[in-house]
Amino acid sequence: MLNIGPYRFQSRLLLGTGKYPSLDIQSRAVQESGTEVLTFALQRLDLDQPTEESFLNRLDLKRYRLLPNTAGARSADEAVRLARLARASGLCDMVKVEVIGDEKRLLPDPIATLEATRRLVEEEFIVLPYTGDDPVLAQRLQEVGAHAIMPGASPIGSGQGIINSLYLSFIIQDASVPVIVDAGIGAPSDAALAMELGADGVLLNSAVAHAGDPVAMARGMRLAVEAGRLAHLAGRIAKKETAMASSPTEGFVNQ
Amino acid sequence: MLNIGPYRFQSRLLLGTGKYPSLDIQSRAVQESGTEVLTFALQRLDLDQPTEESFLNRLDLKRYRLLPNTAGARSADEAVRLARLARASGLCDMVKVEVIGDEKRLLPDPIATLEATRRLVEEEFIVLPYTGDDPVLAQRLQEVGAHAIMPGASPIGSGQGIINSLYLSFIIQDASVPVIVDAGIGAPSDAALAMELGADGVLLNSAVAHAGDPVAMARGMRLAVEAGRLAHLAGRIAKKETAMASSPTEGFVNQ
Amino acid sequence: MLNIGPYRFQSRLLLGTGKYPSLDIQSRAVQESGTEVLTFALQRLDLDQPTEESFLNRLDLKRYRLLPNTAGARSADEAVRLARLARASGLCDMVKVEVIGDEKRLLPDPIATLEATRRLVEEEFIVLPYTGDDPVLAQRLQEVGAHAIMPGASPIGSGQGIINSLYLSFIIQDASVPVIVDAGIGAPSDAALAMELGADGVLLNSAVAHAGDPVAMARGMRLAVEAGRLAHLAGRIAKKETAMASSPTEGFVNQ
Amino acid sequence: MLNIGPYRFQSRLLLGTGKYPSLDIQSRAVQESGTEVLTFALQRLDLDQPTEESFLNRLDLKRYRLLPNTAGARSADEAVRLARLARASGLCDMVKVEVIGDEKRLLPDPIATLEATRRLVEEEFIVLPYTGDDPVLAQRLQEVGAHAIMPGASPIGSGQGIINSLYLSFIIQDASVPVIVDAGIGAPSDAALAMELGADGVLLNSAVAHAGDPVAMARGMRLAVEAGRLAHLAGRIAKKETAMASSPTEGFVNQ
Repeated sequence: MLNIGPYRFQSRLLLGTGKYPSLDIQSRAVQESGTEVLTFALQRLDLDQPTEESFLNRLDLKRYRLLPNTAGARSADEAVRLARLARASGLCDMVKVEVIGDEKRLLPDPIATLEATRRLVEEEFIVLPYTGDDPVLAQRLQEVGAHAIMPGASPIGSGQGIINSLYLSFIIQDASVPVIVDAGIGAPSDAALAMELGADGVLLNSAVAHAGDPVAMARGMRLAVEAGRLAHLAGRIAKKETAMASSPTEGFVNQ
Repeated sequence: MLNIGPYRFQSRLLLGTGKYPSLDIQSRAVQESGTEVLTFALQRLDLDQPTEESFLNRLDLKRYRLLPNTAGARSADEAVRLARLARASGLCDMVKVEVIGDEKRLLPDPIATLEATRRLVEEEFIVLPYTGDDPVLAQRLQEVGAHAIMPGASPIGSGQGIINSLYLSFIIQDASVPVIVDAGIGAPSDAALAMELGADGVLLNSAVAHAGDPVAMARGMRLAVEAGRLAHLAGRIAKKETAMASSPTEGFVNQ
Repeated sequence: MLNIGPYRFQSRLLLGTGKYPSLDIQSRAVQESGTEVLTFALQRLDLDQPTEESFLNRLDLKRYRLLPNTAGARSADEAVRLARLARASGLCDMVKVEVIGDEKRLLPDPIATLEATRRLVEEEFIVLPYTGDDPVLAQRLQEVGAHAIMPGASPIGSGQGIINSLYLSFIIQDASVPVIVDAGIGAPSDAALAMELGADGVLLNSAVAHAGDPVAMARGMRLAVEAGRLAHLAGRIAKKETAMASSPTEGFVNQ
Repeated sequence: MLNIGPYRFQSRLLLGTGKYPSLDIQSRAVQESGTEVLTFALQRLDLDQPTEESFLNRLDLKRYRLLPNTAGARSADEAVRLARLARASGLCDMVKVEVIGDEKRLLPDPIATLEATRRLVEEEFIVLPYTGDDPVLAQRLQEVGAHAIMPGASPIGSGQGIINSLYLSFIIQDASVPVIVDAGIGAPSDAALAMELGADGVLLNSAVAHAGDPVAMARGMRLAVEAGRLAHLAGRIAKKETAMASSPTEGFVNQ
């Protein structure tokens, strides 16, 4: 079970809702993914006049919990304002804090992210900040009350996978709240690796939405997250330089 | 469907049978893996006096096809001799050619492997040579009639995963027979990556048998192979240096 | 020429002064390195009663510029206090801000580092903050007036080299002050790579001080920094997947 | 000193002569590189009617030893024929065996390379085979008398550097003749790494000839090879996950 604040999830795959080729493909991909948490940009919502054909209208909101994000915010103030709008709409009290400090690479601003997290926790949101892979910042975010930490594996939409698995491991080792690897996941192997390292979940969007076949990829990601989680719990073999015979000649079972 | 010679398999995960903590754990791991092909060292078999408590006696041989390997062979002659023994026993006509040229690291001997493959094909075996990641040798093995190519990801039992994904990709691009990545797989993420690169299957042993919980890891590997296969067919996103917003603010669907 | 604040250096290799087997080896290593900047921990200095046999007493201070660091500081306040002590001693007005936020891995605290940098710039120090590889934080450090940015390649003393060359490249692309790669350099190849990526300099300590032969390694590092700088200016070939004949048969010179 | 057969070299950088922008740039690059061994494709030579403006005519042949290669050969027979031509011309008795088995990626044919090496050793050439990174094949080449082993780091001209440093290390550990890393070197950091791993030399061509400024890059490569060699002899620090303070506060020298 993935526990974030008061919420409990069976699935450890969180899915974004942007950039699908069609609403139909999106719906089927969401279903195949097995996700229980859907994230979307608050800025995309016209909260007063929801688009008829939007995905929110088609969702069975009993099955999915919404995780609005503050994408588009360039300061703590903007992030806080967007989060309040989300709450006012009655959609949810979880918010993914996303304050971009590098427009070209969509990298998060560590200072503004920490500030927005602190303020939103004070306002009693369930706060999941999107951050880089800095282990110290991850600690600071927990100290101000973040309910989960969402370190990026590599730049958003880059599909580069986990660049710095060492620092990601440090974050996971130290964390007392769930760590959900966010941004940069490109393929199931990346998602599996995140889980093998001990992450509590994976959030992704482009890797599914922009895949040749988003529905099949959604299923692939679902299986990969489960595979990685199983491996983490099972305990993988150590890496070693020297080989070791797996087809021994002396006996069938290793006593 | 994975087609090797005349055989058809639903599962793309091939499993070794060595070094499990117990026969019971082995049985359950085999079952959870969903595998249809079990490999084992011919040298371990006392073909005249099979051990009472051996895994072969417990197997429902209608569900699994046996892939004996020539582990322990140090020359083409020895490999051929072992393969003939396997056939004489009536167990199977598939054989994994494994001729080690480096005892310390259990790396295959390219010359003897090619020679043994050529001779066993002439003797009408279904031949799956274990080889390194040399794309030219992989071509030569196909030219002498190998029914599948089994390149190693890294040394046997090392758990290092795929060291040279470039050369593995070359082998896959050129192959007209199945490519089954063998040796070195340590975790589900490695197995998924092999399949994402376009491999037709994965063979592993230590990663499951030596895992803390072999049964759970067997299931993890099964899911990872499926995940990687799905991703290969679906078409993953390209890796790019620059980021791309997955939470666009301008619209829900990417037109 | 490496320009930091008002200072000009021919050498792009900055050297730490800790942990050498002996003062004699240290002296010779410093000389072989060709460095013009020596860094040391202010906390090690008993500024009132300098040790007779300390390296400072043996240095020809006309040849080397001192770069005291605030190692040991756990807050912006402590870093500022240490920097003021350094200035009071008349040793130098450059300071490397080092505020550790993770004692186990010696990773810098992004928030306190930014705060200390801002205050020390206001007090008219020449400020070189040691930071992680977060491109946004690197921008923030420049905005408050840092005279150079010192991103870590990997944890201090780990010898792991450059883990995230992508983010290091981002920092270099954006920087309007020198970028000096600090921490984690283990071998000349790491130092060369840092320079090839476009870094303006490299700071290292353990890789030389703890090498089997620190004097030879110091020379190796000097050559590597020069090699990497030459390559950066010369323009390296692009990496490509497909091979290209370097021994063409059609002509000696590539028209 | 690098000893290959009866020859002794101070420089450990071997340079190819193909694809330079001009003969003048080539001459200056050769000079800056400090190389003592120049390799060139025998097929390029019209041995009866040497081109007036060829690099051979301009070389001071007392300063450089020529290492003709059999580039263009697709079989052992062709390689042997080319080598005999070289000897007949009186140019040299060293030959780099290069038999390509994959035209698209210029990867060596392991079987034909071994065969050509065996035959040329019998004909009393000094034989340096270009091979992949297969440790067992490297052993076989030594067993038939190769005077040096030239494993490729990655495909010729690809600039990808050393993909499989583990197998390269295995080759070096086992070798009783010099190991000269050949093919794929893209930058000084790659050359330094090869030497740090314990290689006896580096051969490269495109990385210099196709650099923006070949002359500066030649100097960079020279320094990098020296740097890597120094580091290998000096003994680099171990890589470790945990950090270690290089600016200790308890004392200046590590007792």
